[in-house]
Amino acid sequence: MSNPTAAVLVIGDEILSGRTRDENMYHLAGVLSARGIDLREVRVVPDDHAAIVGAVTALRAAYDHVFTSGGIGPTHDDITADAIAAAFGRSIVIDPEAERRIRGFCQARGINYTAEEQRMARIPAGATLIDNGLSGAPGFTVDNVHVMAGVPIIFRAMVAAVLPGLAQGRPLTVRDYRVQRPESSIAGELRILAEEFSDVAIGSYPSMLEGRSGTTIVVRGASPTRVGDAIAALVTAFPA
Amino acid sequence: MSNPTAAVLVIGDEILSGRTRDENMYHLAGVLSARGIDLREVRVVPDDHAAIVGAVTALRAAYDHVFTSGGIGPTHDDITADAIAAAFGRSIVIDPEAERRIRGFCQARGINYTAEEQRMARIPAGATLIDNGLSGAPGFTVDNVHVMAGVPIIFRAMVAAVLPGLAQGRPLTVRDYRVQRPESSIAGELRILAEEFSDVAIGSYPSMLEGRSGTTIVVRGASPTRVGDAIAALVTAFPA
Repeated sequence: MSNPTAAVLVIGDEILSGRTRDENMYHLAGVLSARGIDLREVRVVPDDHAAIVGAVTALRAAYDHVFTSGGIGPTHDDITADAIAAAFGRSIVIDPEAERRIRGFCQARGINYTAEEQRMARIPAGATLIDNGLSGAPGFTVDNVHVMAGVPIIFRAMVAAVLPGLAQGRPLTVRDYRVQRPESSIAGELRILAEEFSDVAIGSYPSMLEGRSGTTIVVRGASPTRVGDAIAALVTAFPA
Repeated sequence: MSNPTAAVLVIGDEILSGRTRDENMYHLAGVLSARGIDLREVRVVPDDHAAIVGAVTALRAAYDHVFTSGGIGPTHDDITADAIAAAFGRSIVIDPEAERRIRGFCQARGINYTAEEQRMARIPAGATLIDNGLSGAPGFTVDNVHVMAGVPIIFRAMVAAVLPGLAQGRPLTVRDYRVQRPESSIAGELRILAEEFSDVAIGSYPSMLEGRSGTTIVVRGASPTRVGDAIAALVTAFPA
């Protein structure tokens, strides 16, 4: 049985303008790998209704899960909930449980519960909430789309809340071996090994270490034994 | 006249697996902003022929420029050149000028020029070369698609070689103002200001600074005067 597949959709002008460097995609890529969920695609789109609707529509049809990051706060530029609702042809509702959580968070901190706070309780009809343990405002899941905050610490808390409920796959075994030779000088032998070990994926990444060019070879596969065999073959082919 | 638009396509299993954190998208987002070229979308896809062809085909139709990163080295997992050729319905050729440069690079370093080195001279028919000044192997441009290496130092050198040849837009003026209040407590007033200054984009980003939650408000616009006016209005609305 093959692993579940996933895509990430990062929503945010601040990433596209170069102002902010993405953290959320990188974090999610790591934790999905560890659970055997194959991240197959990432997209970054601006805070634009049509762009979000288009990307969600394409990604949710193509992959088992879609994780979105950004645009669910209280301000005028937070348009993700409406776009997700539009992508599913659903209305937006004020969720009573979300409202209860946000009210409780405000009360505990002596913050007035205003129309702006209430805005964070707006979710597509029928969505389920994603808790985060840090702020009152939840994320939400509609069908196979998990909608989370962009602030990295809250994003990570929401990811931690969502993942246990998803079917896991078989995490790949990943090992690497560094060769102190430029990539092109090992490419011929490496191609033959990649054909011999066609049941594992062998990737090759040029890199500099202490001013010398070398190559990091990464082997990924479902079978730890075969990955180990491939690494042993690499050590034999390219001795240290 | 509106600014030129662009998309970035990052090709690489190593990003999707969480092994490597992207640097190239972040770098390019910054330099495109500075030249008034609007980055509208980023995609990350695996080292997979159909995924690359699909993404290139969609992005090159939607934006003025597409910049790709990764998959043009000498090894078996470098499949970008073939995928770009397929996306354009062109054949792959050994480019004589690319071959001359790679040979020269090898000669200067006492490296044998092999079939694997020659592989890096394979480009789609009719493509023009992108120099990088660091290694012999060039990137290439086909129509509006600029194909560059994934190694960050070489990617940046190729970007520096490509950008001067592209039409520039008008760089947006970007200024920010930090308010020591949580986002929801300023959202109402901010919404009114955003409507008043509808000719600039006002983004709102919650953040923690020394344990206190605050909000960074980012104003972007074509007119430095209007951006300045908006910042002044923010300072009045939310005094320090």
